[in-house]
Amino acid sequence: MIGVDFGTLSGRAVVVRVSDGAELGSAVHEYAHRVIEQTLPAGPGVRLGPDWALQSPQDWIDVLRVAVPEAIAAAGVAPEDVVGVGTDFTACTVLPTTADGTPLCFETPELPHAWPKLWKHHSAQPHADRINDLAARRGESWLPRYGGKISSEWEFAKGLQVLEEAPDVYARAERWIEAADWIIWRLTGVESRNICTAGYKGIFQDGGYPSAEFLAELNPGFAGFAAKLATGEVGDKVNGTTLAPLGGLAGRLTAEAAEWTGLPEGTAVAVGNVDAHVTAAAADAVRPGQMVAIMGTSTCHIMPSDQLAEVPGMCGVVRDGIVPGLWGYEAGQSAVGDIFAWFVDTFGPDAGGHERLTALAEQQAVGQHGLVALDWFGGNRSVLVDHNLSGVIVGQTLATKPEDVYRALIESTAFGARMIVETFEKSGVPVEEFVVAGGLLKNPFLMQVYADVLRRPLSVIGSDQGPALGSAIHAAVAAGAYPGIEEAAAVMGKRTAAAYVPDPARADAYDRLYAEFRRLHDFFGDGQMLHRLRAIRNEASSEGAPSPGGAARAQRPERGRATAFGATEPPHGERQ
Amino acid sequence: MIGVDFGTLSGRAVVVRVSDGAELGSAVHEYAHRVIEQTLPAGPGVRLGPDWALQSPQDWIDVLRVAVPEAIAAAGVAPEDVVGVGTDFTACTVLPTTADGTPLCFETPELPHAWPKLWKHHSAQPHADRINDLAARRGESWLPRYGGKISSEWEFAKGLQVLEEAPDVYARAERWIEAADWIIWRLTGVESRNICTAGYKGIFQDGGYPSAEFLAELNPGFAGFAAKLATGEVGDKVNGTTLAPLGGLAGRLTAEAAEWTGLPEGTAVAVGNVDAHVTAAAADAVRPGQMVAIMGTSTCHIMPSDQLAEVPGMCGVVRDGIVPGLWGYEAGQSAVGDIFAWFVDTFGPDAGGHERLTALAEQQAVGQHGLVALDWFGGNRSVLVDHNLSGVIVGQTLATKPEDVYRALIESTAFGARMIVETFEKSGVPVEEFVVAGGLLKNPFLMQVYADVLRRPLSVIGSDQGPALGSAIHAAVAAGAYPGIEEAAAVMGKRTAAAYVPDPARADAYDRLYAEFRRLHDFFGDGQMLHRLRAIRNEASSEGAPSPGGAARAQRPERGRATAFGATEPPHGERQ
Repeated sequence: MIGVDFGTLSGRAVVVRVSDGAELGSAVHEYAHRVIEQTLPAGPGVRLGPDWALQSPQDWIDVLRVAVPEAIAAAGVAPEDVVGVGTDFTACTVLPTTADGTPLCFETPELPHAWPKLWKHHSAQPHADRINDLAARRGESWLPRYGGKISSEWEFAKGLQVLEEAPDVYARAERWIEAADWIIWRLTGVESRNICTAGYKGIFQDGGYPSAEFLAELNPGFAGFAAKLATGEVGDKVNGTTLAPLGGLAGRLTAEAAEWTGLPEGTAVAVGNVDAHVTAAAADAVRPGQMVAIMGTSTCHIMPSDQLAEVPGMCGVVRDGIVPGLWGYEAGQSAVGDIFAWFVDTFGPDAGGHERLTALAEQQAVGQHGLVALDWFGGNRSVLVDHNLSGVIVGQTLATKPEDVYRALIESTAFGARMIVETFEKSGVPVEEFVVAGGLLKNPFLMQVYADVLRRPLSVIGSDQGPALGSAIHAAVAAGAYPGIEEAAAVMGKRTAAAYVPDPARADAYDRLYAEFRRLHDFFGDGQMLHRLRAIRNEASSEGAPSPGGAARAQRPERGRATAFGATEPPHGERQ
Repeated sequence: MIGVDFGTLSGRAVVVRVSDGAELGSAVHEYAHRVIEQTLPAGPGVRLGPDWALQSPQDWIDVLRVAVPEAIAAAGVAPEDVVGVGTDFTACTVLPTTADGTPLCFETPELPHAWPKLWKHHSAQPHADRINDLAARRGESWLPRYGGKISSEWEFAKGLQVLEEAPDVYARAERWIEAADWIIWRLTGVESRNICTAGYKGIFQDGGYPSAEFLAELNPGFAGFAAKLATGEVGDKVNGTTLAPLGGLAGRLTAEAAEWTGLPEGTAVAVGNVDAHVTAAAADAVRPGQMVAIMGTSTCHIMPSDQLAEVPGMCGVVRDGIVPGLWGYEAGQSAVGDIFAWFVDTFGPDAGGHERLTALAEQQAVGQHGLVALDWFGGNRSVLVDHNLSGVIVGQTLATKPEDVYRALIESTAFGARMIVETFEKSGVPVEEFVVAGGLLKNPFLMQVYADVLRRPLSVIGSDQGPALGSAIHAAVAAGAYPGIEEAAAVMGKRTAAAYVPDPARADAYDRLYAEFRRLHDFFGDGQMLHRLRAIRNEASSEGAPSPGGAARAQRPERGRATAFGATEPPHGERQ
């Protein structure tokens, strides 16, 4: 099996043995364009506004072309022995395409809205706010499934932003598709929509998308938006579309994709999935109450449960959204590792980087720095679902040192995690086990802080390639090697229980700091002050915002249509 | 005339011409011990706790021995032509001495409480709290003169701390004296107490100190504390002592002091004064409503007025406290330049220091950084009078850069200044002119921020040696060259009116940020959360606190009495 994980900055391919989950070989391909946040690849003349974050589809194709063959070579297996391909993606990372799946940014690279919007593109908050307000007013039945608020990161908010800021792009976007599904389309030649992103990011609940009536009330031009999402015929069938189940067979490798990857044409391809959700399988944590925290640049919390409840501020609950037959819950923290990286890159290069700061922070007693922080530097995903919040650091004195702030930032994310766990339990959804996966596992101090703050043992995943391993597990199911995800995960997944246990004295000390965190959460959580500060900021820097439509277009002549797939010169490579 | 200014890190002597205030020559001497905050010079075995700040009297003597002769040489004048010496000091910087003025730290350098406590020694906050609580309960008439709260920086709070943490030191302290008066004692051989520090820092109001009855209720052992302050006979006369008026003649140079300074024995010495207060004369701003802000590591606001009012959180109002015949108001910000220095030293060395950060910050539109901060990194002197407050930074995102925070910190101090000015005006004490003096004048960007935030023109002092010039002006009055301070200041002082004027658009934008500052001020100003965080911090780091009395004593044998003045080897020079 081969699992391919499309991340924020790179894509990784891992070859996994079906019989025991052994990881035989892997390869990483860094995206040439990384995250596009300042100016478009089309040229420095097109500047993006605050809170924009785009990606390039060509970078994803390059992962298939580079990382997959390298991983197979590294594993020392014959391509013919690979019997299935599984993939996972960041989400909601979503793009507009033509009817045949050509990304619009390949046609009009000078238009910001033609590009894929990365999950952390946060400038659609006003649109999300309107969707939430209207849904609350109309009492839409799907709203409570998302903790009472949908996120600015999701398909509808980003789609509405395109409609209103670049109507021409919206009109040309025959499909509005998750990258998770787009990559499957590229691999198999068949468009499909996986139940996971449709449910969590596409507001697909109880068999349908939000109604055309609801969408029209947001904006008459938005009424037909769901037609850009559903598979099959456009029209009456839109809201009755059957989605592809997780672990299912999406199709088989096309000749083109076989050439990219070096795998045999016709190899089984699993239904698309999301990096966080597929990790539950890799950690063998797909049973009710097993909360998997995938801790990296951000944290996603994924938990199957047999209970359906309305958890305030959860990202979503989706039937069959993690494994078939259970409710799948998702919650999250918008920025975690990103916060530490920001701090070190911005304020700490002289302080010696993560290792030195961790070593210094580790020597302190709990609370010795006198600080408490709100971990909202990238907004708050759960439990407030508000990307216009921002970070707060309280208690600094002239004696405060970089390691003090660094430790307080680590603790702030642990407090944020505790807030999420407590919110689930208070809502009647028990959290039986807290399982950690992701890159931050490599910092044992940070893990111990989480164990102490959460007052519970932490289990840890046994792989540092969780998403790719999880994708390979899904591929094994899709290829028929196991009857279901739970069975495959039990054999191929890896988890160490109680790898970190809380220290009671430290946990007591953290309780006092957590009480202050909650007070700050209450004061700033209404968003009043932080929203005003952001509004002032956005007004003051408005000259830097993207000028959708006319202005940008005028700077560059309309281009001929590029041959997107397999082009030797991708359009965005044409920039000078 | 020669003026000598004793600052936080160094002392400066300036030779000034009587006829026009021309500064003929100057010299600076850096204190060898700077600020003593971590361990005593007596040895690394004696560690100080949080919020301690001490100084060495030998450093002050060295200023007289080094900087004064150097300044005279630099001026190219004959020592015989210097007809008067004036001095100013930080305050409340206060020390325990024997009856002949020998600092106790010269006798027992291993005892933390034997050392002079610098103005920014803030660990007597619990003692200040008790003084304030009791005074409020008893309705002491002096309390409203200090905005309803005395500061932990002042003579009574620091004295009570010594009594309760080191009773043996307290018992041996026959005098408890401001460094401003101690240095005059050294120069003239005569103990005096200037009306300025007695009023602002010593709670001398309406002819007396707080009553023995009040002090006994704080602690029975504290009942006779005022006897350590007053000049003249101890006993019934204590609260009837006449203090020395500003601009008065304190005495004449002793033979010993003449030898130190190279000046003729018998030269006139003016009554001691405080660096901030004496600067009003240097800026020719000693008339009612002229508020002088001396902006350096901290900011002091000094303003004469013909109105007596109770201004919330002012540091004090003292009759004749700046110039005879007017009420003298003082307010302050505990840390200003210290905040910027802390930020650059701690987080910004890679960002290029003050100049580079200022250049980057200057390019921003108001509010573009999205931040607002509370300038309480060194506590809040006015209007809350609470040194246990701490700094808060709100609104950071993953895009926040060092120059953003740097600018927000500058703005936070300007907001703090505006809060003070508004509080005065609301209380019926008009502020007619805002005059800036001090080291931060050299940053024009910062000055412009203040003009914009305050919405008023800024006048600036015409000297970068304000306190020393002011001291020389006082010396001219003491020596009889002018009839009074106002007349001398009019000739020798220097001020440029409206050197910076506000920009209306920026001022409007700042109004919005200032509104947020006020909301934070309200939320955090009750001190609840910040006090708890500090308590947690102090408990967690308590192993590092000083162990007064027994423990420290046991580490070092009792020393013989050192010859303090003129000793070729000062006692604190004996450390290994």
